[in-house]
Amino acid sequence: MAQAAAAAANGAVVDGSGKGDLKAAFIQVYSRLKSELLEDPAFDYTNESRQWIDKMLDYNVPGGKLNRGMSVIDSYKLLRQGNLLSDDEIFLGCALGWCIEWLQAYFLVLDDIMDNSHTRRGQPCWFRVPKVGLIAANDGILLRNHIPRILKKHFKGMPYYVDLLDLFNEVEFQTASGQMLDLITTHEGEQDLSKYKLPVYNRIVQYKTAYYSFYLPVACALLMSGENLENFIEVKNILVEMGTYFQIQDDYLDCFGDPAVIGKIGTDIQDFKCSWLVVQALERANESQMQILSENYGKDNETCIAKVKVLYRELHLQNVFAEYERSSYEKLISSIEAQPSKAVQDVLKSFLHKIYKRQK
Amino acid sequence: MAQAAAAAANGAVVDGSGKGDLKAAFIQVYSRLKSELLEDPAFDYTNESRQWIDKMLDYNVPGGKLNRGMSVIDSYKLLRQGNLLSDDEIFLGCALGWCIEWLQAYFLVLDDIMDNSHTRRGQPCWFRVPKVGLIAANDGILLRNHIPRILKKHFKGMPYYVDLLDLFNEVEFQTASGQMLDLITTHEGEQDLSKYKLPVYNRIVQYKTAYYSFYLPVACALLMSGENLENFIEVKNILVEMGTYFQIQDDYLDCFGDPAVIGKIGTDIQDFKCSWLVVQALERANESQMQILSENYGKDNETCIAKVKVLYRELHLQNVFAEYERSSYEKLISSIEAQPSKAVQDVLKSFLHKIYKRQK
Ligand SMILES: [Mg+2]
Ligand SMILES: [Mg+2]
Ligand SMILES: [Mg+2]
Ligand SMILES: [Mg+2]
Ligand SMILES: [Mg+2]
Ligand SMILES: [Mg+2]
Repeated sequence: MAQAAAAAANGAVVDGSGKGDLKAAFIQVYSRLKSELLEDPAFDYTNESRQWIDKMLDYNVPGGKLNRGMSVIDSYKLLRQGNLLSDDEIFLGCALGWCIEWLQAYFLVLDDIMDNSHTRRGQPCWFRVPKVGLIAANDGILLRNHIPRILKKHFKGMPYYVDLLDLFNEVEFQTASGQMLDLITTHEGEQDLSKYKLPVYNRIVQYKTAYYSFYLPVACALLMSGENLENFIEVKNILVEMGTYFQIQDDYLDCFGDPAVIGKIGTDIQDFKCSWLVVQALERANESQMQILSENYGKDNETCIAKVKVLYRELHLQNVFAEYERSSYEKLISSIEAQPSKAVQDVLKSFLHKIYKRQK
Repeated sequence: MAQAAAAAANGAVVDGSGKGDLKAAFIQVYSRLKSELLEDPAFDYTNESRQWIDKMLDYNVPGGKLNRGMSVIDSYKLLRQGNLLSDDEIFLGCALGWCIEWLQAYFLVLDDIMDNSHTRRGQPCWFRVPKVGLIAANDGILLRNHIPRILKKHFKGMPYYVDLLDLFNEVEFQTASGQMLDLITTHEGEQDLSKYKLPVYNRIVQYKTAYYSFYLPVACALLMSGENLENFIEVKNILVEMGTYFQIQDDYLDCFGDPAVIGKIGTDIQDFKCSWLVVQALERANESQMQILSENYGKDNETCIAKVKVLYRELHLQNVFAEYERSSYEKLISSIEAQPSKAVQDVLKSFLHKIYKRQK
């Protein structure tokens, strides 16, 4: 990495916060990782296959918000409590962040195939791009396979290398298991809406989203700091709780958020999603409201969608959410402040304040 | 494992060869691994999801010929040169063998989706089973994720644990890359049959088939024996060569084998496969024969298929294959005999003699 980028990433220059610069450093690392993958000696690329991977990576990896990826280096910086980071530390933190972005890309490419979705991040889903089709399934697999290639190239020999491999393996297993639960539950819910209950909702969210989005980045930063993850079980629980809160916000904003702010129009109602809102509605609905739900939920029809939304308002789900948000925040803050390490508290609070009362 | 099964696996009883008994021990290990996975504490299974995995594993994992899986313990036994194996060694060798069978199941479930296939191992492809559909894509992912779960449970703490993780990661990467090459090549071949050339054929086979089917089992046995894989590069090359020979036989038998013996009717011609036979035919065809190929290859029509087969006979591809088989065998034997270790020679010869002139 250029010395200037490292200095900037340390927050030494320009805007004072160092935020924009850390992001710039992060984005530079993507190009390096991609070039290395395209020259990986473990496979004898033809020109066509190298170009395919190049295009596939650019289409699927860097186009998200990069929050998950950035949070590795952000967390690591907080764990180092004001110590300047070396070029190498910044590079490694960014590389682990990109591994999480690669993991996310892998899940999304395959999820879009399974959900038969149309768009992702404002462009057609990868499998809908002409000439791609179901080759996308193997591209998803390749994205997943790039992670151990990156880890081996840059972390082999580190004392925490085997822990990194175990961590990524365990979190991937949990995410894929959560995805299975989601697929099975949605299948059953389509026959009988009353299957959407809070415990199953919580379980899906915990496994499908919270581990990889919230626990994984912090766990990566802890390993880089030389910590043993077995001493951070309570930190894991707090992050899973935060991940659940994050997904509940996501479900809430899908219906009640401002499309101009969140950048897309929600489709959870017509998609028959096991959303926190429908779970809450089912808990509160009387018989005739239940009828309305089963007649209109999961139908891709403006009138049906509107009826569900009217019902959500009748059941005061906006207030239910506001109360959930308040109590969840309070509980999280008190768990965080019970943590013995100030540095760990800072990491957790930084995560919480990034998402608390978010509008997008 | 029951003492009797271990004794039997050592070849101490019954039929003298000990073959059938090692197979029995191997099959017992499947049930144990499955039970452990269904109780994995890293995921909080619902009853429905546990039953789903149970059924999915039984449908996809154990129904093959189990050659790849058995070859780990077979190879390990040869490497131990007549020493009796302990119960633990037999269990671990079988567990690694099952990891390869799990890997194969993962590739096949996804390959059948990508190829839009109908049957596999004499039953409908998993994604064609009612209620499964595209959930099969995630089931494929789960099969893959079970491998590090098995490795962590039984090999964590072994001195070769990290090497096992690296090995499975590298071989999976190579296989998925080979699959990409196959998908891209077949796409292009469908536009222009003359893209099917021997170097691209060899590259696909090496990556898509040879590494995981031939190198991986031996590499597992070497790691269990305490060896460093960096000292076995030539062994890897020999096994990749043998894997290529195996796939060429597979392509040959698809057209010229006896369906009653191989247990299925070949479909490579109508499936537009980049088969060794079409590659050889393209190398030898004159202009009018080329015309016949491009008009009839890849068409699911009895007359077209028959015309391609007549052409293969006109071009004497049976003789071309016989000559390839002879020279390939000779080359392999001389490479094997150049190996310094007698035990390693035995492993390689055992592989070669299992496949030489096979009819199924
Ligand atoms: Mg989706
Ligand atoms: Mg989905
Ligand atoms: Mg959403
Ligand atoms: Mg296939
Ligand atoms: Mg295929
Ligand atoms: Mg075949």
